[in-house]
Amino acid sequence: MSLAHNAVPTPRTPSDDERVREVVRAGLEDFLAERERTDVPAGLDAGLVAELSALALADGKRIRPTFAWWGWRAAGGADLDSAPAPVLRALVALELLQCCALVHDDVMDRSATRRGRPTTHTTYADRHRTRWWCGDAERFGDSVAIVVGDLALSWADDALVTSGLGAAGLTALWEPWRAMRTEMMAGQYRDLLASARREESVPETMTVARLKTAAYTVERPLHLGAALAGATPELVDALRAFGRDIGVAFQLRDDLLGVFGDEHVTGKPVGDDLREGKRTPLVAIAFELAAEAGREDSAALLRSALDGAEITPALVEEVRATLRDLGAVQAVEERITELTGRALSALRDVDMSGDARSHLLRLATKATTRRR
Amino acid sequence: MSLAHNAVPTPRTPSDDERVREVVRAGLEDFLAERERTDVPAGLDAGLVAELSALALADGKRIRPTFAWWGWRAAGGADLDSAPAPVLRALVALELLQCCALVHDDVMDRSATRRGRPTTHTTYADRHRTRWWCGDAERFGDSVAIVVGDLALSWADDALVTSGLGAAGLTALWEPWRAMRTEMMAGQYRDLLASARREESVPETMTVARLKTAAYTVERPLHLGAALAGATPELVDALRAFGRDIGVAFQLRDDLLGVFGDEHVTGKPVGDDLREGKRTPLVAIAFELAAEAGREDSAALLRSALDGAEITPALVEEVRATLRDLGAVQAVEERITELTGRALSALRDVDMSGDARSHLLRLATKATTRRR
Repeated sequence: MSLAHNAVPTPRTPSDDERVREVVRAGLEDFLAERERTDVPAGLDAGLVAELSALALADGKRIRPTFAWWGWRAAGGADLDSAPAPVLRALVALELLQCCALVHDDVMDRSATRRGRPTTHTTYADRHRTRWWCGDAERFGDSVAIVVGDLALSWADDALVTSGLGAAGLTALWEPWRAMRTEMMAGQYRDLLASARREESVPETMTVARLKTAAYTVERPLHLGAALAGATPELVDALRAFGRDIGVAFQLRDDLLGVFGDEHVTGKPVGDDLREGKRTPLVAIAFELAAEAGREDSAALLRSALDGAEITPALVEEVRATLRDLGAVQAVEERITELTGRALSALRDVDMSGDARSHLLRLATKATTRRR
Repeated sequence: MSLAHNAVPTPRTPSDDERVREVVRAGLEDFLAERERTDVPAGLDAGLVAELSALALADGKRIRPTFAWWGWRAAGGADLDSAPAPVLRALVALELLQCCALVHDDVMDRSATRRGRPTTHTTYADRHRTRWWCGDAERFGDSVAIVVGDLALSWADDALVTSGLGAAGLTALWEPWRAMRTEMMAGQYRDLLASARREESVPETMTVARLKTAAYTVERPLHLGAALAGATPELVDALRAFGRDIGVAFQLRDDLLGVFGDEHVTGKPVGDDLREGKRTPLVAIAFELAAEAGREDSAALLRSALDGAEITPALVEEVRATLRDLGAVQAVEERITELTGRALSALRDVDMSGDARSHLLRLATKATTRRR
């Protein structure tokens, strides 16, 4: 044991996913440094660029660039050592867009931390408070975060348009990009509405998962990568079908982890989804099963947990037991299995490089069976 | 008199500006109808599109498209009857970007009305309240408005990228477009900071006016139009110099109208700028003059008006008298005259169509001597 402890770590070849993350990070650094060089002398506050850079460069899963990368590879795109610059720019653009989504979502959800740092609106509200500035500190923080998100969104588009792609390439790329942005915002609005209206319909909560997570996180990134490599319509359809199902399954897994996950592993406090009153497919399925079984008591317990009751560890345990007893957990697990199976079969009969196929199957498993 | 009253109105040829406004409106209608056809079946809420459309199609001054149009014409672009589609799309994109700016600014400023309608955040907060939805109504309204603004910003970029321009044209166009978006956001942040820090420096308030108004409203729209027509660098420089000065003069006029304007003519309640504690060049100049003259009483009065005193008609009168007595009004009027003169001289020695020149001079006068 002491030998093992003192041993020099074996040098390890980074995995493909690690290399994608490195490339994305380097691309983000370059892009943001260039923006700083150009825009700060023209009047943009350097602190604002630093805030956006800190968020963009903080450890993230880079899940969207990873799927875009394998969409590119599936359609025969070159490997990392020889991939053309516009492809790497598209990965950067996906992360900048994600920065907009994170900063604006955090304002909407009043979240305090993100990627291990205080959220943008919290940082600026605190600065306002400690310096005794004029006006309302919280409003100031929210306003700055709106501007930072807008900047990230503009820069995401700039990253793509100035990537050096020709007109035909940009046109091919822009359709999935355009659709993805709109779907993400469409999902965000429906999610706000679902919480406000205490949505209990399974189809509506599944639609939110499809737009806000599946399209934005898996389906369209794959589509984008494939479009860059000039994929055939058949391959694009197969990748999108795969991405849609894996994306929804990913969200269902997320919902289960939100209630049943180990917060030491997920890094997210258990009960946060309940505290936020999130109307997930998991709870919608539970309401449906409760109605079918005439279990008004179970539905009432869930409603009270979602509608403002104090979320104690005991209540979390009660909610867990209720979701299990109603069969909601099993139903969601079955749905995940079904979606994953359908996703894998979507890829079965389509032509793609064996390398990309095995990575996509690996990512599918990772996304749907993960513990964090 | 009764004859005149009953007379059939003489048919009148619409002015060029009216025709630009018509073309912009028609272009917005087409673009938004196309988005509705494509995106609503894909999951985007129809009401959200309707909200954005109502704002975009409500009467606006269309000042940015008008300047872009005359930038295009100055560089030899075809007239309205034969202008190519991408030019009209650029005018539409400017208005969509302005929708983002308006919706997000209204959240930051807590404004209740815009273009004669309730603001987006107010509309959705009211809907939340009247339907007894769950959670905080104001936060719901703000969140929806953030999404609507994000959608408008994305669609503005989409309008340009899908305008049918070739790669060279899009590259030429994107530099002013990119710079303009960033400058607008840079100005917005500095404006937030100026209010929070009770900014009293003339250079800083002038920088905000230059970024937030001049660059975004006049300089870059002219640049954009000129770039579309393949203008020479000399013409671009001249138009930008003109636009920068006219834009700042426009903002200085706006600041004067905000305190001295007739609210029946401006449509904006007198005292709103004071109520919002806006740190304009007008008040910064007043603080500077008060310091020079040792008029601590005048500075104190202005500070109290800006920092939360109740803005009564009597206080507005006192502020007006103070600004006049200090010589701030005269100083701002002189600055407007100086900027306008320098703007006009920037155009003097550069080659452009006589038609465009006379329209630009007319717009310059209108922007800097207007009463509303």
